[in-house]
Amino acid sequence: MSYFDAASAAPLHPVARQALTASLDEGWADPARLYREGRRARLLLDAAREAAAEAVGCRPDELAFTSSGTRAVHSAIAGALAGRRRTGSHLVVSAVEHSSVLHAAEAHEAGGGTVSRVPVGRTGAVDPSGYAAALRPDTALACLQSANHEVGTEQPVAEVAAACRAAGVPLLVDAAQSLGWGRVAGDWSLLTASAHKWGGPAGVGLLVVRKGVRFAPQGPADERESGRAAGFPDIPAIVAAAASLRAVRAGAAEEAARLRELTERIRARVPGLVADVEVVGDPVRRLPGIVTFSCLYADGETLLHELDRAGFSVSSGSSCTSSTLTPSHVLRAMGVLSEGNVRVSLPVGAAQEDVERFLAVLPDAVAAVRGKLGAPGSTAAVGEDAPAADVLVAESPTVEDLSADSPAAGDSAVDDSAAEALVVDALGKRCPIPVIELAKVIGTVPVGATVHVLADDEAARLDVPAWCEMRGQEYVGEEPADRGSAYVVRRLA
Amino acid sequence: MSYFDAASAAPLHPVARQALTASLDEGWADPARLYREGRRARLLLDAAREAAAEAVGCRPDELAFTSSGTRAVHSAIAGALAGRRRTGSHLVVSAVEHSSVLHAAEAHEAGGGTVSRVPVGRTGAVDPSGYAAALRPDTALACLQSANHEVGTEQPVAEVAAACRAAGVPLLVDAAQSLGWGRVAGDWSLLTASAHKWGGPAGVGLLVVRKGVRFAPQGPADERESGRAAGFPDIPAIVAAAASLRAVRAGAAEEAARLRELTERIRARVPGLVADVEVVGDPVRRLPGIVTFSCLYADGETLLHELDRAGFSVSSGSSCTSSTLTPSHVLRAMGVLSEGNVRVSLPVGAAQEDVERFLAVLPDAVAAVRGKLGAPGSTAAVGEDAPAADVLVAESPTVEDLSADSPAAGDSAVDDSAAEALVVDALGKRCPIPVIELAKVIGTVPVGATVHVLADDEAARLDVPAWCEMRGQEYVGEEPADRGSAYVVRRLA
Repeated sequence: MSYFDAASAAPLHPVARQALTASLDEGWADPARLYREGRRARLLLDAAREAAAEAVGCRPDELAFTSSGTRAVHSAIAGALAGRRRTGSHLVVSAVEHSSVLHAAEAHEAGGGTVSRVPVGRTGAVDPSGYAAALRPDTALACLQSANHEVGTEQPVAEVAAACRAAGVPLLVDAAQSLGWGRVAGDWSLLTASAHKWGGPAGVGLLVVRKGVRFAPQGPADERESGRAAGFPDIPAIVAAAASLRAVRAGAAEEAARLRELTERIRARVPGLVADVEVVGDPVRRLPGIVTFSCLYADGETLLHELDRAGFSVSSGSSCTSSTLTPSHVLRAMGVLSEGNVRVSLPVGAAQEDVERFLAVLPDAVAAVRGKLGAPGSTAAVGEDAPAADVLVAESPTVEDLSADSPAAGDSAVDDSAAEALVVDALGKRCPIPVIELAKVIGTVPVGATVHVLADDEAARLDVPAWCEMRGQEYVGEEPADRGSAYVVRRLA
Repeated sequence: MSYFDAASAAPLHPVARQALTASLDEGWADPARLYREGRRARLLLDAAREAAAEAVGCRPDELAFTSSGTRAVHSAIAGALAGRRRTGSHLVVSAVEHSSVLHAAEAHEAGGGTVSRVPVGRTGAVDPSGYAAALRPDTALACLQSANHEVGTEQPVAEVAAACRAAGVPLLVDAAQSLGWGRVAGDWSLLTASAHKWGGPAGVGLLVVRKGVRFAPQGPADERESGRAAGFPDIPAIVAAAASLRAVRAGAAEEAARLRELTERIRARVPGLVADVEVVGDPVRRLPGIVTFSCLYADGETLLHELDRAGFSVSSGSSCTSSTLTPSHVLRAMGVLSEGNVRVSLPVGAAQEDVERFLAVLPDAVAAVRGKLGAPGSTAAVGEDAPAADVLVAESPTVEDLSADSPAAGDSAVDDSAAEALVVDALGKRCPIPVIELAKVIGTVPVGATVHVLADDEAARLDVPAWCEMRGQEYVGEEPADRGSAYVVRRLA
């Protein structure tokens, strides 16, 4: 079994395990107490804080341990916004932040604040000047991740920090994905991180607030951690977090180069191994261990299942995965294909032979999914999976002439070529069925004619244009329909 | 070294340690993921939830794991108040709740809500009818601890729950101190607990919300734990928490009886071993492992230090301990002496011989503190501590005739006997100096005459009346003064 989902959670680093078990006997007492057990716990906590602060590049009294990276983000945003309430209630975030940042932004909006979401380019990075343009006189806080958790793209943090500094706005950097690799460059004001991303235990986050940054902790008062993280601290976990951060940092440069070579191998070879693949994210300015690609005519959940059966644990930003029916907000903001999306995030120590084995099994896994869905170019599914494929085929959408009573039929706004258009009714069908049906019929209409894809799956809005770009067809646009939308595609070739 | 502060944090139970280390390899992945590592983590989390729910006596889907007991309390109060916002914004708490509850109540007040604090009797328990009387038509939530964390007194939870049920008000029970001993009786609506109180690891709290209770989680959205506990869960710690709860419950009846005998021994013998001691809390309706007493003419911090040197780790609700200059709110609400306060809270497995040794060293420890302070009846300090005592004596307050220019001297409202009163100027002196000086001079005024103790230490408000009750003198009352207050005592004997 190869675990390639380190961006979700890294396996516990051996140093973390050792530090955790070693401090269970010394770290359980209340560090605020004056007796021996309390003093011992305090010593452990102080040492961990110094080690973590050194790794971050801040003063120990600027760093608080929280109960998770999510808590660190929530506390940081709430505290920084409240601390600058007199300046205004405008918050700036990038469109591709982690959900903890975006949910905190939504909570801020629900409370009457305003939020600007800075768009990203096709690689997933914000443009520094675009980010700077979003800053206003009433901006209380700006947030930018150090690197994206889904595609690995590094953000121009130093440039954005300089722009924020010039505008007098504090910048919060969510460094969850990058802190194990190195300090965050630039003149940021607040920083958050999460230990289980670098091989520390779950249950430990970092919240750094630079001296001089206005900060008013929210929620009920609590004297722990300078009032910034309520609740009794889990000192053994904190010790393990700090020790493992130091350990991964010690080998970071060498391991980063090694993992970068492995992910470069995936980036370079996947398009040759699997047809109709889009590798997404910045090819150069990126984290060492993350590579993400999307496969046309495949659905993410089934693909994850096939890869799991083949011994690989990866994640997906596709819709139709267990917890969501919408594609990842990151892929949407980038405007890239979300179908059959696979994120490979290699843990420290990932073996080259496992990466090779992944490349060996990937083509069959994708082919199996495409076969089940009856995708263009796939061979018929055989064996135990055949019945499922039959069912899907039986349920596949119908193709009708425009003269039939489809919602778009009577639309007088349809242009001349609409007379030769086809309507693909994919209402009620989930990604990637709408695109598969589009691909099946595009060759049946004359060059210059259009196909209207009726769909109510959110993913179609992203995937139909992405398909057009990949296949050299023209995406005309989206038209309203009685149910869902009509995505209009013109055949160019 | 004997650790007698289990009510702060219990040492890690062997079963917790075993479960924690055993699940480090299986419990680190994201339980929301579909691949093998995620499924394993989910299985561990589900099993822990079932075990914890069985121990609480609730359905698994009513129980969420939080990152601490404090977080559980904060989330429970905020969520329950928001869920019943349409009913009103009145919150009822007892005056002796844990600070996490009281701080949440203060935050509620700061946000515009109203709070009633139900007083307690001298044993620390609320009166059920008094609690019921605090419920109003606009009461959104009521909170009551299962047992008090400082004095061990059990609260009449079942009776209060019945009153709340009759009034249609949900009752939140903070079961932090009692859950290891057994389920909470009565028809409560919400319950919170903290694993490190029963020997589980830090970093795990329980938040139980009964089906049908209106609850609206506050703060940014997060899909974890039914939306009730944001952040990636620390599954190894959760597994350890559940396993140790099960383990301590298995031996709870036998261990409770054993510890009760040990604390009963302390309750019974301390008054004979140390003069001028008040044992506080309910002698019968109490937790098995907690006993609390206060020593006249002693200060808590120095006493803790003496006991630490003698090998005992205990805590104190006195003022003048490291983190606070006010006596514990619990002792204040009970109206008992806060001077020289010692809480002994025995961990599971505490040895009888350690308790005997504690009783053996206690008299000398108290005598040493009293000697340093020059307390009545104490012998002069000798040896290495003498210089400190000299300094304190040199700084002791001055006793003046009322004819001197003390603030009370010109007060025309002073009654006839004031002509024979003394003024003790203890301004700027910390507990227990004001009471020590009072004790020194009370014999110098005629029976029927008064002593005015001028003090600006918050503890005097509690300790002067408590001293009067213990010594058979009359506490006349408190009068305003230019600085601090004048506490008026009449000599009766």
